[in-house]
Amino acid sequence: MSADNQQERLDAEWIVGFVDGEGCFHVSLNKLEKMSTGWTVLPEFRVVQHQRDEQVLYRIKKYFGFGIVTVNHGDRKEFRVRGLKNLNLIVQFFKQYPLQTSKQKNLEKFAEVLSIIDAKQHLTKEGLDKIAEIISTMNRKPIPQYLESSETIRLTAEKKLKI
Amino acid sequence: MSADNQQERLDAEWIVGFVDGEGCFHVSLNKLEKMSTGWTVLPEFRVVQHQRDEQVLYRIKKYFGFGIVTVNHGDRKEFRVRGLKNLNLIVQFFKQYPLQTSKQKNLEKFAEVLSIIDAKQHLTKEGLDKIAEIISTMNRKPIPQYLESSETIRLTAEKKLKI
Repeated sequence: MSADNQQERLDAEWIVGFVDGEGCFHVSLNKLEKMSTGWTVLPEFRVVQHQRDEQVLYRIKKYFGFGIVTVNHGDRKEFRVRGLKNLNLIVQFFKQYPLQTSKQKNLEKFAEVLSIIDAKQHLTKEGLDKIAEIISTMNRKPIPQYLESSETIRLTAEKKLKI
Repeated sequence: MSADNQQERLDAEWIVGFVDGEGCFHVSLNKLEKMSTGWTVLPEFRVVQHQRDEQVLYRIKKYFGFGIVTVNHGDRKEFRVRGLKNLNLIVQFFKQYPLQTSKQKNLEKFAEVLSIIDAKQHLTKEGLDKIAEIISTMNRKPIPQYLESSETIRLTAEKKLKI
């Protein structure tokens, strides 16, 4: 690839294709004592790539005008966006240029989580339960720690009731 | 994703972005007794995807108007192109719409192999050696069986000379 090529602004559709391949919309629930619910929500958008191609991550960053390029794991780097304002801009971008794979469904769920946070419902038990349920259907991962913990709490309560 | 969306023709730049993520230009050397050199060259272009998104592979096939969608491994499918004529069309496509990652370098090496085959030089030992050397620099794989075998033959010959 020529140096010129690396300077060129990326095409929006190229970014969509690349994200259909390498992108990830991720939401985690983390324990945080100081929160009234005991949990905090962390939505992230990531594009992961071997460090040999980190130039393309910097060009994605330049395209959006926000986010960071950082180490993902070992020799892999990631372009990462956190924060409601910028993540909402990412969602807007993919509304204009839709993903072509099943990642589109994940994006829609991701947008739903963002709207719950926008409405500050993540500060309530009901909002968090809703987010945990959405997460459990994203990225084909096992039910997150939050739901397991809630279940543990419920099971313990039931056991106590039986005694 | 709507059914409409799945029918839509893909954008060329989307394909480039997706191939930058999920595509592969691959050349293998396989033993074939009936060839005068004892080896045959098999160049392939592949785009691999989980079967949940096989619709996108069919849409790539539709875009190009050739190639097949078949099983890659387990629950993974691939869009695959073989044959000089169609592979040369793939190379032409990426000349018009360049890849943005280091896969562009692999494409250039792939095109070099195709031109060796176009010139029928792969039917000579010199042409095959050249192809084997190009392969050894592609896809960051170990030196292929061909080179190892040649070396084995050479080493055996040297040993014989020493006896």
